[in-house]
This record gives sequence, structure tokens and C-alpha cells, in this order.
Amino acid sequence: MIATTQADEGPGSSKPCAVSEAGPGNLRSVGLEEAVANVQASIEQAAEIAQVQQEDVSAVCLAAAGAGRQSEKEQLESYLLQLGYSNFIVCTDADVLLPAVSTQTGCEHNTGIALIAGTGSIAIGCTLDGQKLRSGGWGYLLGDHGSGYALGQAALADITQVIDLVKPPSRLSEILPKRIGISDVQEIIPWCYSANDAREKIAGLAPVVFEAAESNCPVARQIIEENAAKLASTCVALLRQAVGRHLQLTEQDGRLILACSGSLLTQQPDYRDAVVRGVAQDSFVVQHVREVSPHTVVSPVVGAVELARRLCTPVE
Amino acid sequence: MIATTQADEGPGSSKPCAVSEAGPGNLRSVGLEEAVANVQASIEQAAEIAQVQQEDVSAVCLAAAGAGRQSEKEQLESYLLQLGYSNFIVCTDADVLLPAVSTQTGCEHNTGIALIAGTGSIAIGCTLDGQKLRSGGWGYLLGDHGSGYALGQAALADITQVIDLVKPPSRLSEILPKRIGISDVQEIIPWCYSANDAREKIAGLAPVVFEAAESNCPVARQIIEENAAKLASTCVALLRQAVGRHLQLTEQDGRLILACSGSLLTQQPDYRDAVVRGVAQDSFVVQHVREVSPHTVVSPVVGAVELARRLCTPVE
Repeated sequence: MIATTQADEGPGSSKPCAVSEAGPGNLRSVGLEEAVANVQASIEQAAEIAQVQQEDVSAVCLAAAGAGRQSEKEQLESYLLQLGYSNFIVCTDADVLLPAVSTQTGCEHNTGIALIAGTGSIAIGCTLDGQKLRSGGWGYLLGDHGSGYALGQAALADITQVIDLVKPPSRLSEILPKRIGISDVQEIIPWCYSANDAREKIAGLAPVVFEAAESNCPVARQIIEENAAKLASTCVALLRQAVGRHLQLTEQDGRLILACSGSLLTQQPDYRDAVVRGVAQDSFVVQHVREVSPHTVVSPVVGAVELARRLCTPVE
Repeated sequence: MIATTQADEGPGSSKPCAVSEAGPGNLRSVGLEEAVANVQASIEQAAEIAQVQQEDVSAVCLAAAGAGRQSEKEQLESYLLQLGYSNFIVCTDADVLLPAVSTQTGCEHNTGIALIAGTGSIAIGCTLDGQKLRSGGWGYLLGDHGSGYALGQAALADITQVIDLVKPPSRLSEILPKRIGISDVQEIIPWCYSANDAREKIAGLAPVVFEAAESNCPVARQIIEENAAKLASTCVALLRQAVGRHLQLTEQDGRLILACSGSLLTQQPDYRDAVVRGVAQDSFVVQHVREVSPHTVVSPVVGAVELARRLCTPVE
């Protein structure tokens, strides 16, 4: 969780002047009470660093994972009202990625695709007239293809099949138990099922898959390739949705902006490249898009500050 | 949960004289307290039907899913001691399948493979000298390939991809929401995540996959084929384990007994046939086995009664 205060460095600037971190702000993971407590702690910390008083805050953008559904959005909005803010926007962490790209590129629109792959995965499309399209984001039981969870689960399914002698050992099955910190592979069952945070623990195995792939483990490489292809399909699906509804997902010059975020896409450049390549080479994309412009957004904070800044700048 | 009382109809007979049903007896699903309460209710009911007093019970076989681990086995054993029984055996539901086959075939050994595919999936191998081998049974997060859960989850992953326009609609994606009883497909998220019994609910979708396959839905057929192949691999893995350890998993004449149980294998003959065919055609099996003899065990009760009967019959 990161909160930012607005830096009033003149029009067009969205550089954050203070950044702070607190616990998770995802309503669906930790519940409303814990989420808002974490948001508040982060706001106070950032305000202190920036030496900003609450009465000087002219706009707030609260971008939180899990704020995509109406009921959760409204809960966060009423919380901001309680805190005494009146000029605010509540959106998801995906919604700030394209605004972040627009500050980088100087482009006015937020058109394109925001793709996040961390513990889960989701792609949000924003059309030229501001309509939102969505693909993925179904959670670990229903989908989340290409996510850290999907990679971790594939690695675990591989290792159990190696133990059973269904498959031959691989570099991945060799290093995974060591990275988990178990000496007997049978301990993988209590490791997995005894925890309340099995989803996060399994997603946390994704770096081990990348490590194995770097030593040319064919099993790890296949898991990565398949999941990169699924993330590419998730993006292509957005273009398919837009075309089906006669909406424009590309910039006016035909470029498709692809803003990437989440630990898997920001920390694993080969994975991100495979996804971008998959999108650019899909026949449906080739047919409808002039060029795919990937942007790896290092900090969604920039996008959140940009959205807050726009709240203070009347549209002419 | 089914409890049986022993029918003393002479040596060699394991026909149950009373069968009763109660709630689940799986320690890992419902906890010790509820599991033993269900076991007790079932014993009392069966004893009443059979008009048997506790002092007349000469042996007990308690075959319960989840009793495979030592700690859980010991909990159930001490419970039977508390109830006043002294001559008993505690084993898993898989352990009674081969004894059930042996009463059908008149064969003395319990050699072969017991394969269960219901909500989860597991294969237990029993060698000629009584050693147990195991493949699968890792639970829904780590494996359970070919299980009802795996089929249901594949169906859900398909439908979410259809909604996203990643995939074209299929017969499966058409009928699934109707069978779940939702009018708006977006309701699939609360349907899936709000329940404590998501695993059972997802596994309960397996019949819809078979229904779609019967109308020649290629998506459903592929899900079924892939999972049948995985169950076959689970069985072949046991033979691989046995060969690697110089153990004999076949009868002395080279036949491999394959005892099938669980709702998927008993209620879906095409699925069972595909699994058996997969095992029989695997090159490793062809190399080591003269013939694969499939047996669909309708009632594991017969096997449990057989094991109890053996406790009363001293081995010569």
C-alpha cells in the first residue's frame, strides 16, 4: 500500500513528493477495517514526510486492488468522506497505469491496455472515449492465468508428479523443496494446506520457476511460455471486445499502448517481453493495430498522483 | 459414510447384512469430533437393522477417507478402543477396494491398483508381498488430476475465458451457468468464493462436463480426455514405482488388477473405459504386464466386510 501527496509543481507535473508504505489495502483480502486502517496509516505517514496538513490537501486518488466492484468502491468513498475529504477519486490499481503512461508520454488520453500480473492477473482496457473493458481478474479458483499463483501451482503440480514417478525429475523439482525450506518433500502437504494464506504462499513460488528457467529447465520454461501466452490472450481479448462493440482501444495513430505492472511483469523482463511479443504477433492484433507500445510502469503512484492532479485542474 | 456389520454366513462370505449411511467421516474435511459422531451414528443404525448387539461384534473395519496418515489413523483407533472394540482395523477407503475385488474373483491376494476418482483422486498400489505404494491424493491445491474438482475447475476456467472473449462459446459454457442456477455469468464469482465448500461445489460441476461431452462439445471432450490420461498416468506411476523397487504389483500370472471407485469412475463408464484403455496402452505397462483387468467396485462395503472377516479368521 502506497499513499502519495500531491506535488504542486505546476501544471503537467505528477511527480510524487512523498511516498509511504503500509499493510495491504485490498478489501477482499483483509476486510474493510484492516484495509482502511492501512490506508490511513499510509496517508498520515506520507503527509508527515511531505509536511502537508490535511486542510491543504486539494484532491485524493485512492487506487486499491479490489476496489473494482461498486459496493467496495462505495465503502472506500464513504471512508474518505468520513476522513473529511470531499474532492477524491476511488479506483483500482489497474486504473492508474494508463494515466501513469500518459504522464510519461505526454499523451492526453488514457487509451490502451493496463496489464497486471502479480499474485493474480487482470487486464483493463480503456477506449478512446473512456469506456472500460475487462479481461481476467477472476481470482485463483476461476482463472488468474499467467499470474504468480498460476506459475506456483504449476510448479507444485510438477513436483508432486515427480514424487509419484509420473514425471522425471527436473531442475525445478530439485530446487523447489530447498527454496520452500523443507527437507522431506512430503512436508509439502502441511506447508500448503495448513496456511490461511495458501494463495499468497503459492504465488510466492513464481521466482523459483524463473530461477529454474534461467538454468534451462525445460519444465520451468514450458510453464513460463504457456502462462505468457495466456497473458497475451487476455490482452488480445480486450481488443476483441473493443472491435466487437465498435470501440477504439488504440491511440488515434493506431498504436496500442500496453502498460504493464505487478511483480511478474516489472521484475521478470523476459516474461514481460514474451507477453508483449505474444500480443504483437497475434493475428487479431496484427489485423487491427499498427504498433504495440509496451510501457513498464515502475510506479503506479505516478498514475494516482496524475488522476488526483486532474481533479484540481478544471477541464477546459 | 457407510457402516456395515459382519454377516457370519460361513467362511469366504463377505456379504453385508446391513448398510447404513450418515454424514462424512473424513477427518480432514469435517474434523475429528464430527467424523466420529457420524461413524457412531452409522454403526448404531446398521447394528439396529441387523439386530446385532455390541457384545456380538467380533471384528470391525473402519475404512475412512483421510485415514491414510498415521496421526489420523491413531485418532480413529483410540476412538474405537473407547467404544469398547478391541479387534479392529482402521484404513482408508482406497484400502478396501482390492479386498472387495478379491471376494469377487476368489483370488487370495489384494495385489493390484485401487483407483478412486470422486471429488479428489488417488491411486493405491498393493504389491504381492503386501507393500503399499501411492500416487496422487495430493488434494485440490497440489494436484488431484482427473478428479471431479479438476474437471469442474477446467469447466469454470473455460467459461471465464468465454466471457472475456479469449475463447469462443461452447456447449459447456452455454449450459454451465444454467446448471449452477445463475442468470448473470458474473454471479459466478460470489458463487465460487463466498462458499466454505468451494472444493465440493466445483467438483459437483463434473456431471455438467460429461453432459456437454455427450452433446459432442469439443471443449468438454478435451477436458475429459486430458483428465482420463492423467488418471491413467497416476496408475502407470505405481507400476513404475514397483518396478523401480523390484516389487511385484501384478498377480503371479502377470495380470494387473485395477479396482475403480469414486463417483466419476462408477457413474461415468466412458470415463472409466478411457482411463483403463490409457493404462493398458501405456508402453511401460505393455512392457511389464500381461493383461489389465478392470473391476468397478460398486460397493467398497464388501471390501470392508472382507477385511473385518479376515480379522476373525486366523491365517493358517
